[in-house]
Amino acid sequence: MDIKAFYNLTYGVYIVSSLDDKRPVGCVANSVMQITAEPPLIAVSINHENFTNSCIEKTKRFCITVLGENINPLVIGIFGFRSSKDFDKFRTVKYELKQNLPVVSEGCSYFVCELVSKAETETHTVFIGKVIDAEMLSSDTPMTYSYYQRVIKAKTPKNAPTYIKEQK
Amino acid sequence: MDIKAFYNLTYGVYIVSSLDDKRPVGCVANSVMQITAEPPLIAVSINHENFTNSCIEKTKRFCITVLGENINPLVIGIFGFRSSKDFDKFRTVKYELKQNLPVVSEGCSYFVCELVSKAETETHTVFIGKVIDAEMLSSDTPMTYSYYQRVIKAKTPKNAPTYIKEQK
Repeated sequence: MDIKAFYNLTYGVYIVSSLDDKRPVGCVANSVMQITAEPPLIAVSINHENFTNSCIEKTKRFCITVLGENINPLVIGIFGFRSSKDFDKFRTVKYELKQNLPVVSEGCSYFVCELVSKAETETHTVFIGKVIDAEMLSSDTPMTYSYYQRVIKAKTPKNAPTYIKEQK
Repeated sequence: MDIKAFYNLTYGVYIVSSLDDKRPVGCVANSVMQITAEPPLIAVSINHENFTNSCIEKTKRFCITVLGENINPLVIGIFGFRSSKDFDKFRTVKYELKQNLPVVSEGCSYFVCELVSKAETETHTVFIGKVIDAEMLSSDTPMTYSYYQRVIKAKTPKNAPTYIKEQK
């Protein structure tokens, strides 16, 4: 098996958010896809170790913000490197509440989802949410993970917080 | 809800294949993502009406070929427009068998998967497969669905079989 084959799968770059009581929480995710059109269902895979995972479990609601190519790389750094368990990521990133869930204002579009189903695996939960609200936020081109790796990461020092593997 | 928000989700372009007895079958899919690394699991959403869906159900195995930007558009036309139920799509598209499953030779990479789980929705099945074989096929750049819409579709007459919505 050649691990490089997996690099050929195409992803976007997203902030998946939820609430810890009333405190907004979130993390970076790549594995997001629409799975049906009627009703509009979206699936997202989140590591068990991400604090956001437990918040989605509790609240049964989550929000996805699509990030664009012109996003401030610090947003990816903050959401990808720190943990919402002990750090208020939304303190320094502009957001607005949609259906009471935090949306990153600088994103391309957002989806507010109600949890309808999930599939458990050893390391990740695949949450399936029904979209109850979705709007455009800007006309920025959605960032692909490939663009992130080629352009954003290339501009960023190795030890900067945008090292995306550390997402929690 | 603004339907345009959904266009900001990023996808690749894939052929999902399986077997009808010994006959290779397949269809175009966009909703493909890796959901865990250990073990390597991939999820794909396939419409109930796709003949390939029933073949995956029966054989409990499927293969994903990643298509690149230089793929012959006819491959997308054949796999996106016709149904494997009554048409042998692999008759005119070069393929090779990997672990006994058909891989489109012109692709970027492939994944042979064993079905380990699935989630049903009203219109689609989300198949979760464990990757048992994955290799690179070429160094072509993986095609994004956005590239398909901007470049490939723009080159193609409206009534040509590459009209991707008709995939079965």
